[in-house]
Amino acid sequence: MPELPAVAAMMARDEASRGLGIELIDQGQGRAVTRMTVREDMLNGHAMAHGGLIFTLADTAFACACNSFGPVTVASSADIVFVAPARGGDVLVAEAVLRTRFGRAGLYDVTVRRGDDVIAEFRGRSHQLGNPQLGDPRPGRPRPGPAS
Amino acid sequence: MPELPAVAAMMARDEASRGLGIELIDQGQGRAVTRMTVREDMLNGHAMAHGGLIFTLADTAFACACNSFGPVTVASSADIVFVAPARGGDVLVAEAVLRTRFGRAGLYDVTVRRGDDVIAEFRGRSHQLGNPQLGDPRPGRPRPGPAS
Amino acid sequence: MPELPAVAAMMARDEASRGLGIELIDQGQGRAVTRMTVREDMLNGHAMAHGGLIFTLADTAFACACNSFGPVTVASSADIVFVAPARGGDVLVAEAVLRTRFGRAGLYDVTVRRGDDVIAEFRGRSHQLGNPQLGDPRPGRPRPGPAS
Amino acid sequence: MPELPAVAAMMARDEASRGLGIELIDQGQGRAVTRMTVREDMLNGHAMAHGGLIFTLADTAFACACNSFGPVTVASSADIVFVAPARGGDVLVAEAVLRTRFGRAGLYDVTVRRGDDVIAEFRGRSHQLGNPQLGDPRPGRPRPGPAS
Repeated sequence: MPELPAVAAMMARDEASRGLGIELIDQGQGRAVTRMTVREDMLNGHAMAHGGLIFTLADTAFACACNSFGPVTVASSADIVFVAPARGGDVLVAEAVLRTRFGRAGLYDVTVRRGDDVIAEFRGRSHQLGNPQLGDPRPGRPRPGPAS
Repeated sequence: MPELPAVAAMMARDEASRGLGIELIDQGQGRAVTRMTVREDMLNGHAMAHGGLIFTLADTAFACACNSFGPVTVASSADIVFVAPARGGDVLVAEAVLRTRFGRAGLYDVTVRRGDDVIAEFRGRSHQLGNPQLGDPRPGRPRPGPAS
Repeated sequence: MPELPAVAAMMARDEASRGLGIELIDQGQGRAVTRMTVREDMLNGHAMAHGGLIFTLADTAFACACNSFGPVTVASSADIVFVAPARGGDVLVAEAVLRTRFGRAGLYDVTVRRGDDVIAEFRGRSHQLGNPQLGDPRPGRPRPGPAS
Repeated sequence: MPELPAVAAMMARDEASRGLGIELIDQGQGRAVTRMTVREDMLNGHAMAHGGLIFTLADTAFACACNSFGPVTVASSADIVFVAPARGGDVLVAEAVLRTRFGRAGLYDVTVRRGDDVIAEFRGRSHQLGNPQLGDPRPGRPRPGPAS
């Protein structure tokens, strides 16, 4: 896979993803794929993969995708729909794809699968931090969404 | 466009969409496209198209897409991100596409555009009502999402 | 009710809310209550109040609450859970309450009820537009959420 | 704190929460409070607490709250807004509160705080699994949300 410097540096310091065995297995501009095997210490009290760790796998893919353009970018919000349970030993793959960018914001869709089965659908909103040295990516006024 | 009987019958009775001038301009299994011109009586106090009416346009596309399979299907939840404002006179087009189905539930993505510009991104979750006469689409236990 | 000038001026220009018969019946700093009677021309193809118009009622309450502090504030995103259907003739009341503010953003919860019954739960995120003349409400760097 | 048998049994088997040091520190009908200290192995590539693990803390509080009534209950979806970053050594507390129940579904709000500062706002939707032996909690037709 093509290695993007900003993403590689970020992943090298990501202790949380390392501890969970989350690997970045593919990446590109505005996209990323991560993989995690569900360990016994990732199960919840119903013997299913803890929803928070499925979210974490998706969130790491999202972080790699939204930082692929260079500037430091953080999550401002995310939502997840749990489609089917995952069990110990399952290999989960999360694929993040840019949906749209506007101002400093970005919207990414992440699908978590076990083989061909969808396990969860995640959507995250990112916020690019300013960097006056590099030139602010959004010099003008914020582009508002419609007032409610 | 191919006319789906369940969708055509539903739209024929949809007084809310008719009152807003929302038209169904394309449809298929698991998809639908609606169109609305922003009238002066659709503006909010900031002179932009009211976010609720942009949501309504997307929601009607979602309803047509999720009812395209036949059984009566309702919205259980939805979210919307407002990407850019719309103004009086703008022609907005909402395109709904099925993302995934599971049990009686479905997840649909709807993008609202003005020409090539994205105005809003909507995601809706549907719930298919049971119909014992026709055979319940999900006779067994609900397929749970993962326990949190 | 105490009248807040920014909200009163905004509502006076809100043609969309007026057309739907949405009234502001109470307001305060960070809160607002709106009311709408479900008319026959607000029903969808399943003879229920169109979900988009329930959203619109909640969205107007949200707009009044988030503009109550003075600066022009717009919706950046919102989600809604539909709890129970509403029918023609129902009187719906939406109560918006500030949950938290951070930087230029605010998070508001809106509950839509018919009498004591909950019809929908809405959560909206607002974005305050800058106004250099009045002094930017957030002069420093954006406070980031945690990186994913 | 009062100990609820269903919640205590679930937490005793929750290996994922145990591995992250998540403790249940208070509970009741429809509510729960969890606590987690942000360890160095919970940081992401921007040296902040990984958003997925903040989500996981909130999700465990949500699971305890929605299982407090007895029947096995799972998460069907959730969303989170990241309000402020957390750092290594921070002690985070998540408080989950029932907002509304309908049919087999429940809606819970979870606020994550560090002291008095809000770190994140989470909202989760739960789904109670059927148990014919105990009597199905929802014997009739599903109560639909409004059709879109």
